[in-house]
Amino acid sequence: MDFFFEPKGIAVVGATPERYHGGQYLVTNLTLGYKGPIYPVNPKYNEVLGLKCYQKVADIEGPLDLALIFVPAPAVPQVLEDCVTKGLRGAIVESSGFAEVGPEGKSLQDRCLHIAQKGRLRIWGPNCMGLIDTSRRHVFSFITPEVWKAAVNPGHVSLIVQSGLLSAGFITTLMGNKTIGLAKVCSIGNKSDVEETELLEYLLKDPDTKVIALYLESFVKGRRFFELAASSDKPIVVLKGGKSPLSAEASVSHTASLAGNYPLIDGILKQAGVHQADDFFEMVDIARTLERDFYLQSPPDQKPKIAILSFSGASGIVTTDHMEKHGMSLARLSPQTLRRLEELSPGWMPVKNPVDYWPAIEKHGPSKSYIHAIGALRDDPEVDGLIVHVFAGFGLWALKMKEIMSGMKDSRKPMLFWLLGPEKAREPTRLALEEEGWPTFSEINRTVKVMASVFERTKRRIGRSQISELDFPVPASLKELALQRIRSNTKILDERESKKWFKALGLEVVREAAVKNLDEAINVANEMGYPVVLKGMAEEQIHKTEAGLVKLNLWNADQVTSAYQEMLHLKNKPESFLIQPMLKGDLELIAGIIRDPQFGPAVMLGLGGVRAEVYKDVAFRLVPLHKEEVPEMVSDLKGQALLKGYRGSKPVNLESLGDWLIKLGWLSLKFEEIEQIDVNPLLIVDGEPVAVDATIIFR
Amino acid sequence: MDFFFEPKGIAVVGATPERYHGGQYLVTNLTLGYKGPIYPVNPKYNEVLGLKCYQKVADIEGPLDLALIFVPAPAVPQVLEDCVTKGLRGAIVESSGFAEVGPEGKSLQDRCLHIAQKGRLRIWGPNCMGLIDTSRRHVFSFITPEVWKAAVNPGHVSLIVQSGLLSAGFITTLMGNKTIGLAKVCSIGNKSDVEETELLEYLLKDPDTKVIALYLESFVKGRRFFELAASSDKPIVVLKGGKSPLSAEASVSHTASLAGNYPLIDGILKQAGVHQADDFFEMVDIARTLERDFYLQSPPDQKPKIAILSFSGASGIVTTDHMEKHGMSLARLSPQTLRRLEELSPGWMPVKNPVDYWPAIEKHGPSKSYIHAIGALRDDPEVDGLIVHVFAGFGLWALKMKEIMSGMKDSRKPMLFWLLGPEKAREPTRLALEEEGWPTFSEINRTVKVMASVFERTKRRIGRSQISELDFPVPASLKELALQRIRSNTKILDERESKKWFKALGLEVVREAAVKNLDEAINVANEMGYPVVLKGMAEEQIHKTEAGLVKLNLWNADQVTSAYQEMLHLKNKPESFLIQPMLKGDLELIAGIIRDPQFGPAVMLGLGGVRAEVYKDVAFRLVPLHKEEVPEMVSDLKGQALLKGYRGSKPVNLESLGDWLIKLGWLSLKFEEIEQIDVNPLLIVDGEPVAVDATIIFR
Repeated sequence: MDFFFEPKGIAVVGATPERYHGGQYLVTNLTLGYKGPIYPVNPKYNEVLGLKCYQKVADIEGPLDLALIFVPAPAVPQVLEDCVTKGLRGAIVESSGFAEVGPEGKSLQDRCLHIAQKGRLRIWGPNCMGLIDTSRRHVFSFITPEVWKAAVNPGHVSLIVQSGLLSAGFITTLMGNKTIGLAKVCSIGNKSDVEETELLEYLLKDPDTKVIALYLESFVKGRRFFELAASSDKPIVVLKGGKSPLSAEASVSHTASLAGNYPLIDGILKQAGVHQADDFFEMVDIARTLERDFYLQSPPDQKPKIAILSFSGASGIVTTDHMEKHGMSLARLSPQTLRRLEELSPGWMPVKNPVDYWPAIEKHGPSKSYIHAIGALRDDPEVDGLIVHVFAGFGLWALKMKEIMSGMKDSRKPMLFWLLGPEKAREPTRLALEEEGWPTFSEINRTVKVMASVFERTKRRIGRSQISELDFPVPASLKELALQRIRSNTKILDERESKKWFKALGLEVVREAAVKNLDEAINVANEMGYPVVLKGMAEEQIHKTEAGLVKLNLWNADQVTSAYQEMLHLKNKPESFLIQPMLKGDLELIAGIIRDPQFGPAVMLGLGGVRAEVYKDVAFRLVPLHKEEVPEMVSDLKGQALLKGYRGSKPVNLESLGDWLIKLGWLSLKFEEIEQIDVNPLLIVDGEPVAVDATIIFR
Repeated sequence: MDFFFEPKGIAVVGATPERYHGGQYLVTNLTLGYKGPIYPVNPKYNEVLGLKCYQKVADIEGPLDLALIFVPAPAVPQVLEDCVTKGLRGAIVESSGFAEVGPEGKSLQDRCLHIAQKGRLRIWGPNCMGLIDTSRRHVFSFITPEVWKAAVNPGHVSLIVQSGLLSAGFITTLMGNKTIGLAKVCSIGNKSDVEETELLEYLLKDPDTKVIALYLESFVKGRRFFELAASSDKPIVVLKGGKSPLSAEASVSHTASLAGNYPLIDGILKQAGVHQADDFFEMVDIARTLERDFYLQSPPDQKPKIAILSFSGASGIVTTDHMEKHGMSLARLSPQTLRRLEELSPGWMPVKNPVDYWPAIEKHGPSKSYIHAIGALRDDPEVDGLIVHVFAGFGLWALKMKEIMSGMKDSRKPMLFWLLGPEKAREPTRLALEEEGWPTFSEINRTVKVMASVFERTKRRIGRSQISELDFPVPASLKELALQRIRSNTKILDERESKKWFKALGLEVVREAAVKNLDEAINVANEMGYPVVLKGMAEEQIHKTEAGLVKLNLWNADQVTSAYQEMLHLKNKPESFLIQPMLKGDLELIAGIIRDPQFGPAVMLGLGGVRAEVYKDVAFRLVPLHKEEVPEMVSDLKGQALLKGYRGSKPVNLESLGDWLIKLGWLSLKFEEIEQIDVNPLLIVDGEPVAVDATIIFR
C-alpha cells in the first residue's frame, strides 16, 4: 500500500488548466503539499499550471509509482495499458461510469481490472475521491483546493468511505467544523481491487491513526474484516449503508454491492467490538470521541454509571430518558460527593444526580460552580462518566472554559459536553473545550449515544487467536457418521440422522425409537409412557409439520393408531416412523448454522415458536464461538428475560446452551460440506436444551 | 389569559439597576418593547433605569394588571398579598425554590396559591422564565436583552415549556439560528395555577400561532389536553420528559411532576394526532416544518412515497435506510419523470429513485440540473414528498438557491433539504432556502423523521365531538347486573360474574357451567365433550392459575376427577367450580380498562401469553373509542402480523375486536365505579375474539 500513500512520482491523467475542473484541482492539490515529481498528462496541452504536460503516461521520464486518473470511463483501459507499460505500481481511478451504472459499466470495470492484474498494477477505485493524508499534506483527490488548504486539521481519525462524491462533500464539511483531526481519508468507490480490508490492515499499523471510521455498503472480505476488527486495539466505527430491503434496492444501482443480511452483520460487528453508527455525522462524533483516550473503570458486566451536571432540571430529565435507551444508569453519588456539591448549593436545593447546579451558579458564578462540581463528580468512584450541560451566553454566562477545565487536564474519566447558547457565545466555548480535548455536542441524544459508545470499549473482546482448533477434537463416532454420509451421498439428513451427529458431540437430544409398523409403534409407546409424539419420515421432507407428518400429544394407543392411519393416507406417505415422548418444555429456542458468502459460517440463536418469529428475535455470531461470547449473544435477544427464569421456570443453563452453539460452530468449521444446520425446536426442559427436531443440509 | 399577554401595566418586583442581574434584565426587556406603564418595585431604590421605583406594589398608582416577581422564594407570599390588595389580575413568579426543591418548597408554593386564589389572582409559575410574545415585542422574562433584541424573529411557532432555565437557554439558541419564527413562548415552570392546557386553549385561538410545541414532564389536565389536541387543526408537537423509570426519578426532584406510564401516553398522543419528539431541537425541527403549510396528497392508508434527489449514491442509500425505519416508501417514478430526468443525465447513468444526479450536475452545472430535476419530481403524481441533498461549496458548487427555487414558489409538495458543505458556503445556502420557506437539516436521520411527521398530518383524527353517548344505550340486563353488584357490594367480580356483563353487551364469552360437586362436574363434562377445563372459584382470587385453580386439557372423567380432588386439597380451597370446553385458539390477546388519574379511562389491547408479555406488546387509547381508531391501535402492536392471518390462521375479525374494545370503553364511562377490567385471555377462535377469563374490579 505504501506506493499509494508515499509514491515516488505521480502522473495526473486528465490534467487540465481549466477552471472549476477536477483535472485542474488534482494538479493544484498536488502542488500544495506533495513533494515528489508531478507529471500532468493530457494530449491537449504542453503545460498545465506551469508543469510540463505529457501526451501519455508512457512518455514520462523520471521516478513514477502512481497515476491519478480522471478521464471519461471509456478512455480508462488505454490509460491503464500505458501505466502497465511504464511499470507503475498503482492507479487511483477517480472517474465514474463503471459498475455503479449497470452491466456495461461493470464489464468496462472488469476489463480495467484484467489489464491491471496482468500488469501487476494495483487499482484504487474507480468511482472514488482518492485519498488524503493530512500529516504529509497529500491530497490525491479532485476536491476543491480552497476547502482544504486552510482547514486541514491533522489528527488521528482515519476514514474509509465507499463513495466518491459523498466523501468529498463530507470531508469538506468536517474540515470546516474544526472538531475532528483527520489522519488519512480513503475514498474507495467501487473497490474493484483495493478494498476496505486491505486498507483497514494498513491503517491498523499506521502510527498516525488511532481510530478508524468506515462507511460501507458491503464487506468484500467479510471474514478477514471481522478477524482484523476483533483483534484490533484501535477503535473501529462502521456506518453500514443498505440496512433495509428498501435501500438494498437503492444500493444495487450505486456501487454494485450486496447489502447483506443486517441482523447477521449486526451480530458480527458486536462480536468484533465494532461501534455502529446510523448517520454520517454520528459516525464522526463517535470516532472523534473514541480518539480521546478516556480511561474506563467500569467493569464489563455492569451498566456504566453516569453523572449529569446541568443548569436545568429539564435537560437532566431528557438526558436520563436517552440514557435508559442506551443501557446506562444514573450514578448514585457517594455521600462525600453530595457533601462537596452542597458546599456551593443553597440549602433549600436538594442535591442529587442529575445535579441541577443552577442555584449554585446563580450564587457563586459559573466558573467557580463548574470547577467545584466537575471536580467533585470526577473524584467520585461511583461515577464512571460525566455528561455536563453548558449554556454559553453573555454576561454572567460568558464562560471561560479553558480556565474551568484547567484543573482537569490529567483526568481521563469520560466527560462529554452538551452545549446550548447563541452561536456567537457557543462557538468560542465549543472550540475552547475541543482544543482541551473535551468533546462537545449540540443534541442530547447524540451526547448520550456517544457516551454509550465510549463504554462499549470496556466489553471484553475475544481475538480469534484465543480460540484453538485443539479445543474441538472430532470424536471418532462423528468421523464415522460423516463417512457414512459421504458414501450414501445424502444431501439432507432427516431428524433421526441429524440427531446422531449431535449425540456424537455429547449434546442432548430427545429420546426416540424408529418403528416400522403400527404394532411396533404401540408397543414402543406403551413402554415409553404417554403422551407421545408420532412422526412420519419421508425423504427430503424438511417441513414435516406443514406436511401433516407430526402428531403431537398422543395420550393412548387409540390416538397413536388414528394418527398412524392418518399419515398412511397422506399424499407424501412416510417411509418410516419415529416415536418420541411428548416433552414438556418451558421454552422453545431455535439454533442453527448458516454460511454467509462474505463472512463464512455463523451460528444463530433465536426464540422459537410462532410468536417469537413475528418479533424476529434472533442473534448471530461468527464461529468458532468462544464461551465468553455466549452471554452477550443471549443478551442480543429482545426476549432474553425468557431465558433467565421467567415466571418461576428454571433459568436456562447457559453453559449447556453455549455448548450447543459452540459445537454447532465447530461442526460447520470441521465439515465444510455442511451448508446449513437447523435445530428447531431446541426445547428447554428443566433448564437444559434438548433437540427435538433438526436437519443438517449438505452442499 | 389576556391580562398575561396584554397587561395594562406591569410591576417588576425585585427590579434592580445592578448589572448581570435578572431583576435588571426584567426591566430592560420591558423598556425594549412593552408600551404600557412599567413600575419597578424594590424598597432599596427610588429609581431603576430611569423609572420611578416603588417600595411595594400597593404604592403604585396608575393602571396595573400584572406583576413579574423575581425575589427570593420566602418573600413571595407577602408580595402576592400586596398584589391581591392592589387588585392585580395576574402574577408571573419567576423565582425558584418552590415545589421543585422538596416538601418545604411545596408548602411555600401552596401558601402562595392559597393567597392568590382567595384574592382572585392568577399565578404563572413559579420557577419559570415567564413569557415572550414576539409580535408585540413583549419579553416578560429575565433573559439577557442582548440575546433577543437583535435576533427576535417573529413567526408562527409557539412554545410551552415546563422548565425555567432550559427554556431561557433554549430560546436564546433558537433565536440565534434564524430558522424558527417564534410567536409566543410560555415557560410555565411548576405550573401551580396556569398550566399547559389553559395555554394550549389560548394558543389554539391565537391568530399568530400556527403550530404549538410543548416540553412537558406531566399533564395536569390530561383528558382536557387530549380533547383539545384531538380536535385541533393546528399541529401540536410534544417532547415528553420522564419517559423512563430512570428519569421519573430525576423528574420528582424537578418540577414535582408525575412522569406517567409512557406506553399509555404514547397511545394517547397518537390518538390525538400529536407529533412526538425525542429531543429539544428535534421538537423545534418538526414544529418549524409543520408551520410551512405543505399540501399533502397521500391518502391515510398508504405509506408516503418519497423521492430522493442527491449528488451521491451513498447519501441516497442512508436516507432510504432511515425511511424504512420511519414507515415511508421509495416512490416509483413515472415513465414521464424518468424521461425528463434522463434529458440532462448522460446515457450511461441509469436514472431511478434515489436519483443520483451527479453526472447531470457535472455536465450541466448544479443550477440547471437542480431546477430541472426538482421540477420533474415535483410534477410526478407518484411522488408525495421530496428529500433533496445539496452540497454547498465553492466554484461549480456555489449554489444560487434562490434562483434554483424561484420556480417552486407555488409548489406546496413537501420538500426538505439535507445540506452538506463547509460552513461559509453552507450558511448562505441554508438561509436562502429557509427564507424561501424550504426547511433544511444537517443530519439525514432528522430530515427523514421530520418528513415522517409531515405525513402524520394525513392521518384521519376523530374529534371527540364525532362520538355520541347515544351510540351506547345501556341494555336493561346490564343495568340489572350493575344493581345486583351494588346490592351485594362486591368489589371484585369473578370470571363468571364478569362474563355476564360482557354477555349482556352481546360480546362472546366461553361456554361454561357452574358445578357444585364432582358428579355434576363429570356429567357436565360428558355433555360438553372433552377436552374440558376445570376452574375453582374462590373469593377475591384474581390469579387463579398461580393458585392452582385452573386445570386445562382434561380428556376424560378420570382426569376431571383427579383435577377436582387436587383442588380440594389446596390451602385456598375453592367454593365452587366451573367447567368450560377447552377452546383451541389461534392467538391469545389481552384487553382491558385502566383509569389514569390525569387522562381518565383508557382501553388496552395486547398480545397475550408469556412470550408477548416479555416483548411488552400493548397499545392504549382513551375512551370512548371510535371504530375508525381501531386499526391504528392494532397497528401499534409489534406483533400485529399475528392478527392478520399468520401462517394460514384466519385473520382476526377487526370489527368484532373493535366491538370488544369500544364496548369495554363505554362500560368504563357509563359505570364510573369500575376501576379496572381485565379480559385475559381474549382468545381468537376462528378469527373471532372470545373471553375465556376476565375480572372486573370496582372502586
